[in-house]
Amino acid sequence: IVVKDTTSFKIDPLPSWNEGKTKAAIIDYIKDVTNKESANFIPEIDRIATFDNDGNLWSEQPAYFQLFFAMDRVKELAKDHPEWQNKQPFKAVLENDMKTLIASGEKGIMELIMATHAGITTDEFELLVKNWLETAQHPRFNKPYNQLIYQPMLELLDYLRTNDFKTFIVSGGGIEFMRPWVEEAYGIPKDQVVGSSIATEYDYNNGAPVIRRLSKIDFIDDKAGKPVGINKFIGRKPVFASGNSDGDLQMMQWTDSNPYKSFQLYLHHTDADREWAYDRESHIGQFNKGLDEALEKGWTIIDMKNDWKTIYPFQKE
Amino acid sequence: IVVKDTTSFKIDPLPSWNEGKTKAAIIDYIKDVTNKESANFIPEIDRIATFDNDGNLWSEQPAYFQLFFAMDRVKELAKDHPEWQNKQPFKAVLENDMKTLIASGEKGIMELIMATHAGITTDEFELLVKNWLETAQHPRFNKPYNQLIYQPMLELLDYLRTNDFKTFIVSGGGIEFMRPWVEEAYGIPKDQVVGSSIATEYDYNNGAPVIRRLSKIDFIDDKAGKPVGINKFIGRKPVFASGNSDGDLQMMQWTDSNPYKSFQLYLHHTDADREWAYDRESHIGQFNKGLDEALEKGWTIIDMKNDWKTIYPFQKE
Ligand SMILES: [Ca+2]
Ligand SMILES: [Ca+2]
Repeated sequence: IVVKDTTSFKIDPLPSWNEGKTKAAIIDYIKDVTNKESANFIPEIDRIATFDNDGNLWSEQPAYFQLFFAMDRVKELAKDHPEWQNKQPFKAVLENDMKTLIASGEKGIMELIMATHAGITTDEFELLVKNWLETAQHPRFNKPYNQLIYQPMLELLDYLRTNDFKTFIVSGGGIEFMRPWVEEAYGIPKDQVVGSSIATEYDYNNGAPVIRRLSKIDFIDDKAGKPVGINKFIGRKPVFASGNSDGDLQMMQWTDSNPYKSFQLYLHHTDADREWAYDRESHIGQFNKGLDEALEKGWTIIDMKNDWKTIYPFQKE
Repeated sequence: IVVKDTTSFKIDPLPSWNEGKTKAAIIDYIKDVTNKESANFIPEIDRIATFDNDGNLWSEQPAYFQLFFAMDRVKELAKDHPEWQNKQPFKAVLENDMKTLIASGEKGIMELIMATHAGITTDEFELLVKNWLETAQHPRFNKPYNQLIYQPMLELLDYLRTNDFKTFIVSGGGIEFMRPWVEEAYGIPKDQVVGSSIATEYDYNNGAPVIRRLSKIDFIDDKAGKPVGINKFIGRKPVFASGNSDGDLQMMQWTDSNPYKSFQLYLHHTDADREWAYDRESHIGQFNKGLDEALEKGWTIIDMKNDWKTIYPFQKE
């Protein structure tokens, strides 16, 4: 006999959020759409919530954490690639020259990704990510990267799930870079992770089958790719979408077009002291068109500095 | 307060299965891997079960049901395409000439799919599928196609879910052809459907966003594509796989390589009276290499005629 106590509702579901209109808007929405007596009631099967990851569930400064992973991997592989000493963007990585690296643009980043993320099996790649998370540290906080997740968002994810929402990640980041750690970090199972991917192929491998990662992009889950990824992987329009940059705008629009009452939540990085402050002019996580449209349409904007009591779990009292 | 009675175990979980070694093997496996005291215990998060659809959860004779859908669609669209009267494979469809249609091969079928499945939005396509299921009837049983699902498999899906397995469809059929009806038919939510797909694109459409289906294949979820699709959509190796043809062999191998104790279940169509009998020589659902490997490796083979008491739900006493 399993007994589930549903009276725990009276406990504050979002203790790391300061009282104010952002927190109230979230709670009001969830109470409304889960209330069977409300005209805005949403059946459980349609309670789909999608969350961007970089800069939304964990930090993304001073560079996307997946880029740090790729850079560390280049340094490890460099002994077998003497030619990298004089070849960009590898030279920039080996010299920790972020300026040249970033100047190499999307083409340069893609070369890095292919050199570090492909040519191995999916099992080998998963192990690399896990080992990296156990050893690498963020340059500012000197913590493993997967500790730089946002405590208030963990509470929001839990709150949604307690109310029978199914929570998904919909990220521009690599799907197989996220899967090894998001279950533990966010309580989101691997099959609820939508992201960018490289092509793979099955190899029977004499009875010990493997899936090999190829040097070819399969799908970019960003901007207009986000609704496409949502449709492909989830097959249902979300009612709740959460993101932090222009890369999430199409996901917000797509969710906003749901006939059910929907919720658009944008995280505005306004806290240079405890985290980072950036928006319209940032090269990472640019929040410009998205900010305009959020203001125009009255979407909910989290002001990190004022709305969040705590940023990271390790800072909790 | 919600009270869940877990004593219902003593009720036969598979009432439409005859007693025998197939039923016993399934029950023994599930009891073993969900028993915390067993060396073969599998944690809930790793209890992934994948099911092929055509010929495994519903029938696939005298032709894949999705092909009947495409044919009916061609007939509807024909008034706007006078050129189809003299153009194959459309001419064959309009003349109900299955022999010529099948002789047009994969190329012909693909032309049909593109003419009937693309060039519209995802919402429009979903509506077409739903309307078709409400109006079309199977030529032998004179029932809507989605009534030709297998009662014993519905019980197996339920039994697995009762034991905290997450059940997925992994089908060569179109993902968006399945999603409109599989939730109701099998209790499998849309985001747990892996299948073949055509490319799509997001269109803001002046503030009423849509996703358009393009005339381009995105992914074929068959044979070696099945482990690839499983890795892409689920991200975890299954422990339980169920299929009926050579198209499932790689999924079986992939599952068989799971370090956890795994289960491979092949459905052998042996019942010409109540359903159909076909295997090694069949053009639809060929079961030849898969049958050899199942016998060699001792995978469980359902003998439909002898193992199943009932075939379809509408035949239940
Ligand atoms: Ca982001
Ligand atoms: Ca099949």
